[in-house]
Amino acid sequence: MAGSSIGTIFRITTWGETHGEGLGVVVDGCPAGLSITQEEIQQFLNRRKPGQSKYTTPRKEDDQVEILSGIFEGKTTGTPISMVVYNRNQKSKDYSQIKDIYRPGHADYTYDAKYGIRDYRGGGRSSGRETIGRVAAGAVASKLLEELGITISTYAREIGGISIDIERFQKEEIFRNPFYMPDKEAAVQVQEYADRMMKEKDSMGGVIECVVEGLRPGIGDPVFEKLDANLAKAILSIGAVKGFEIGDGFAAASSNGSVNNDAYCWQDGRFIKKTNHSGGVLGGISDGSPLVFRAAVKPTPSIAKTQSTAGKDGEEIELSVKGRHDPMIVPRAVVVVESMAAITVADGLLMNMSASMDSVKKIYE
Amino acid sequence: MAGSSIGTIFRITTWGETHGEGLGVVVDGCPAGLSITQEEIQQFLNRRKPGQSKYTTPRKEDDQVEILSGIFEGKTTGTPISMVVYNRNQKSKDYSQIKDIYRPGHADYTYDAKYGIRDYRGGGRSSGRETIGRVAAGAVASKLLEELGITISTYAREIGGISIDIERFQKEEIFRNPFYMPDKEAAVQVQEYADRMMKEKDSMGGVIECVVEGLRPGIGDPVFEKLDANLAKAILSIGAVKGFEIGDGFAAASSNGSVNNDAYCWQDGRFIKKTNHSGGVLGGISDGSPLVFRAAVKPTPSIAKTQSTAGKDGEEIELSVKGRHDPMIVPRAVVVVESMAAITVADGLLMNMSASMDSVKKIYE
Amino acid sequence: MAGSSIGTIFRITTWGETHGEGLGVVVDGCPAGLSITQEEIQQFLNRRKPGQSKYTTPRKEDDQVEILSGIFEGKTTGTPISMVVYNRNQKSKDYSQIKDIYRPGHADYTYDAKYGIRDYRGGGRSSGRETIGRVAAGAVASKLLEELGITISTYAREIGGISIDIERFQKEEIFRNPFYMPDKEAAVQVQEYADRMMKEKDSMGGVIECVVEGLRPGIGDPVFEKLDANLAKAILSIGAVKGFEIGDGFAAASSNGSVNNDAYCWQDGRFIKKTNHSGGVLGGISDGSPLVFRAAVKPTPSIAKTQSTAGKDGEEIELSVKGRHDPMIVPRAVVVVESMAAITVADGLLMNMSASMDSVKKIYE
Amino acid sequence: MAGSSIGTIFRITTWGETHGEGLGVVVDGCPAGLSITQEEIQQFLNRRKPGQSKYTTPRKEDDQVEILSGIFEGKTTGTPISMVVYNRNQKSKDYSQIKDIYRPGHADYTYDAKYGIRDYRGGGRSSGRETIGRVAAGAVASKLLEELGITISTYAREIGGISIDIERFQKEEIFRNPFYMPDKEAAVQVQEYADRMMKEKDSMGGVIECVVEGLRPGIGDPVFEKLDANLAKAILSIGAVKGFEIGDGFAAASSNGSVNNDAYCWQDGRFIKKTNHSGGVLGGISDGSPLVFRAAVKPTPSIAKTQSTAGKDGEEIELSVKGRHDPMIVPRAVVVVESMAAITVADGLLMNMSASMDSVKKIYE
Repeated sequence: MAGSSIGTIFRITTWGETHGEGLGVVVDGCPAGLSITQEEIQQFLNRRKPGQSKYTTPRKEDDQVEILSGIFEGKTTGTPISMVVYNRNQKSKDYSQIKDIYRPGHADYTYDAKYGIRDYRGGGRSSGRETIGRVAAGAVASKLLEELGITISTYAREIGGISIDIERFQKEEIFRNPFYMPDKEAAVQVQEYADRMMKEKDSMGGVIECVVEGLRPGIGDPVFEKLDANLAKAILSIGAVKGFEIGDGFAAASSNGSVNNDAYCWQDGRFIKKTNHSGGVLGGISDGSPLVFRAAVKPTPSIAKTQSTAGKDGEEIELSVKGRHDPMIVPRAVVVVESMAAITVADGLLMNMSASMDSVKKIYE
Repeated sequence: MAGSSIGTIFRITTWGETHGEGLGVVVDGCPAGLSITQEEIQQFLNRRKPGQSKYTTPRKEDDQVEILSGIFEGKTTGTPISMVVYNRNQKSKDYSQIKDIYRPGHADYTYDAKYGIRDYRGGGRSSGRETIGRVAAGAVASKLLEELGITISTYAREIGGISIDIERFQKEEIFRNPFYMPDKEAAVQVQEYADRMMKEKDSMGGVIECVVEGLRPGIGDPVFEKLDANLAKAILSIGAVKGFEIGDGFAAASSNGSVNNDAYCWQDGRFIKKTNHSGGVLGGISDGSPLVFRAAVKPTPSIAKTQSTAGKDGEEIELSVKGRHDPMIVPRAVVVVESMAAITVADGLLMNMSASMDSVKKIYE
Repeated sequence: MAGSSIGTIFRITTWGETHGEGLGVVVDGCPAGLSITQEEIQQFLNRRKPGQSKYTTPRKEDDQVEILSGIFEGKTTGTPISMVVYNRNQKSKDYSQIKDIYRPGHADYTYDAKYGIRDYRGGGRSSGRETIGRVAAGAVASKLLEELGITISTYAREIGGISIDIERFQKEEIFRNPFYMPDKEAAVQVQEYADRMMKEKDSMGGVIECVVEGLRPGIGDPVFEKLDANLAKAILSIGAVKGFEIGDGFAAASSNGSVNNDAYCWQDGRFIKKTNHSGGVLGGISDGSPLVFRAAVKPTPSIAKTQSTAGKDGEEIELSVKGRHDPMIVPRAVVVVESMAAITVADGLLMNMSASMDSVKKIYE
Repeated sequence: MAGSSIGTIFRITTWGETHGEGLGVVVDGCPAGLSITQEEIQQFLNRRKPGQSKYTTPRKEDDQVEILSGIFEGKTTGTPISMVVYNRNQKSKDYSQIKDIYRPGHADYTYDAKYGIRDYRGGGRSSGRETIGRVAAGAVASKLLEELGITISTYAREIGGISIDIERFQKEEIFRNPFYMPDKEAAVQVQEYADRMMKEKDSMGGVIECVVEGLRPGIGDPVFEKLDANLAKAILSIGAVKGFEIGDGFAAASSNGSVNNDAYCWQDGRFIKKTNHSGGVLGGISDGSPLVFRAAVKPTPSIAKTQSTAGKDGEEIELSVKGRHDPMIVPRAVVVVESMAAITVADGLLMNMSASMDSVKKIYE
């Protein structure tokens, strides 16, 4: 089926595999007249590049994005923006070991069951590199939102069970440690834990938090195109993500109405909420408060530590995955979460333009 | 925008408001030849009927579903199935109090911001009654899955912070207490807590868990039509849901690869996973294990307890919501979660039919 | 599959069969704040009512439309508009004759081949009554377009091979004869031919022409959401339509570039085209001229005249279809063509709102 | 908006402009296990290559297709197939003349009106080269259909008003003359007329006919996903196409029911129609007869002959378009029509797989 696209108006279609020629994306429906350059997109992409620290694997991939269409004299033309990153540094032989083995935690078995065919080289379409297209598109969506005064901030709230402390929260710290944690001390603890995990040849997971500010109320469509429902789908579509929550999320489940309700008040000629337990969305529509949501990322499945599994013919196998892999996915996933958030919010915003006859008349003249 | 539909092949479109003539749904794409009766659908719907206990509000709504098309001589014809439930017991005057007030925790403000118009009578399209259409459609989807040996079980795993105990898990208990809890003792504790909350004019939330068994591997489409991504969207689209997790979910975030990975083994001529941390989905595709996911439900926003809020003109108001409302949403939401799960799995299953040339040839002859 | 819906933003979902409880439509994505009443919609629907003359069959159907949701205090709320017309005058026994026969020119055989099940009562989903939902939705779309200064005029350009004469074209004539022809003399000739056809128990086809005025340039999206491509789909989806052409259509095929090109000139501060061979669309986008297109309608398949055909078991049968049927479809189809045009143009117009950053900023403020 | 995609299950997304880096397509939803090679796709593409005769412009474009993903060891993997053709032979300076002029018959003005921005270099997204993506995708779809015994034949039925003669119809002739006409004599007449037109610096249009054989009945979904409705949209989306008709098309409009109806008969254990006025589709569903439809192609707008038009500032201009252009579009469009037909039929066929519970059970086991 057409699983490679997401979005209704601002629609992206990604393509490519780890060991194919390259990976890319087609961004369709971006309004014309948006200023954007290859450098801006490249900058965004670089945030996902491995080899940024010893905690993410040393694959020095040279991911240079090329814009093949859709931008003319520095502005989008309204026609589809096609971008590609060519694969230069993928080694097939590293993966021959697992050609006939189902690796635990990976989609090997599920792909075989679905298609009867499996491209065993590096995970194919379920690999981490598949996110290149998402991030390139995310760069464009972010620029669009910026033009409208909407900003997004994403970071690791927790890694390996070690949480940041709100009291020590410093936005600038996000880009100063390899874990994208806005808390210096927590980052140090994570480093120690990570060193231990690497010795034990194991891996660790985490929680990524994303905050969208400046989004005016009214974005999102009941009943099934709710903003938080679309965010959930976009985020869960990222490999290794196993949970999504918005506002107080699962904590709201054990709360009470008198506490969880955000009361309104009037301030500076605007309605604002005194608290933000809702996380910025009520009834599926943005409520004017910052959007706050979290994604649960499972530990990297590929570990050098020995695991029991079975081969294609049913025989029991002790597997120790050689080759290159990340001890933690979270740092690389931060910009992917941010990209999917930008894409989803942009789409919702564009969909909202026709919500009332007043808006329609404003445009149609 | 077209927010009233969800699904690609098995597609449902709901319509209706609390104080309109009625509510309904159009189910499109259900394969022809499925045996289904009005009684079966009614039975499913009755699980959401309020008035089942003193813990859900005493609105004795008489929700009888009528089938207007799509079923002929007891079987689906392949044409759209239209179903309606007429509104018989809605009192407008109960809601006049809040005509010009933004109730905390409700979508009043967000609807106004979006449309410039708001039907204040009972929550309109964001009301709990909107779920009637979903559940009627869910009945059809469930029947379809049953025919293929797939069953779904849904229950309250936690209410008001009180969790079930796995050791005391009894499936039959689900339908014996008003909370749909599979643990008799926990249900009693919840009852005590609920009584206390009702005295305090407050409300409570909970967590609903859903288990799908019998789903063969291969269902779900990478990259954006992943089964868990679509489930997340379907579940988050339910009012009052603030979180979704699958398998170990957020617990996986603090786990390690060696623990979280489900190893394969060969048993009775089939591949099975020894554990199920993944919750039945890997790489977005069903892996043969039971699908296990959870939804976080926030406390009912409408409470009689006094809250501070603001009116349309900015003035501060002390609000005590009269009228009829549930102290807890969870019990009514259980069948809604099950319905959305059935609809999503059915759609994924039908989408999967064209995954390989072998399947295509089997059908095309 | 989900074949019951059409449109991206302004999206309609029809449901119902001739011999089910009723027929209806859900209109989703209509902007909030549009003034519309049941009377306006009923008026539109009445244009398709049979029994308007002796040339359309004497089924005095009492097609009263009911609005079940989406309109509050005389304006659309932005939530889906559900409308239904109940079946009151359908006789099953008239169709028992053809229960096991494949009628020539009808979808009997194709439905059986597709579903393995066929509701033989009156054509089910392929019946003319299926258009009720389209027309009710068309009424809403037409109102929306009217509010923006866009008007649509539809009429029979040709029936039974008898064409109108442009020199005698009179818009008011359209509603003065039973054939919706804007040429009095041609209408008389058609009447004579129709009388002859009815004696011979045969039927006749025709060509419907539709003109949309006031549509500003820029509506339609390259590459696959072209305005004329979407119109073609919408029009071909109407039963009995076998052709679509826009502007000079098939006549352009034998023309030359020097003749067919519409040259531009500047008039009253606007660009206009001196001619309109294009029919109002260039490159799939409206060009400011009136939209002019035509639909070819085949002769009614159901005729009392004896035809040879085969029964389900292969036996040869001489069939003379009793029961009620129209000697010509064209007059009833005129408002259906107009409805589909309105729906398609409305959807294109709403999709166009996000075409440029300038428009987006205008709305987002 | 997302106008760059078409299809529900077999879905294609094209991208690229004449003067960008390249043009391409992403084909999503092609079942896994289909054998296809770069040579097969290239062969298909070569049919659209200009420079095949003196009647199509002498742009010796070297359109080599590269497969960037989706095919592994000679078979489709079920993941998206991305293909690209790089632009090597486009000269910008040829088009500087028309930077500030609206060329008659082109989408210059409409693009400006829509986006406020126009890439004037060679027609951008409305250029003939945009069809490269469609044809590459068409090659894949054709292969899929071939595997199921479905074949497509497309040819010019009429050019410049000169029609083929059915009596002289010879399928092999299609590939023996530069016009793709299956009638040798007609081709000679067209040649003479074309020579005359080139002298007069004018252009000519034509009608393309397409026949699909081997399609079993049952493909297509009522009400809005009718096979002929989808074909109409796909064909009208091709630049320069101004009309679509199926079966007898516009001729049916002046026919009678007794003639136009196709009677059934039983032959060799199958139901067949004695005639094929319907063109292979009834009630929007394939009826077992060959699918026969036609596309009306207007004359090439770009002609060297002098035309009056207006410039951006309203001034009157006499325009004689220099640069390279085709005196007739029809020959190049033949394979584009065939491609869109293949894509549409393939999508319909895949959508049909879930039409009945019998089919679903066959696959689900």
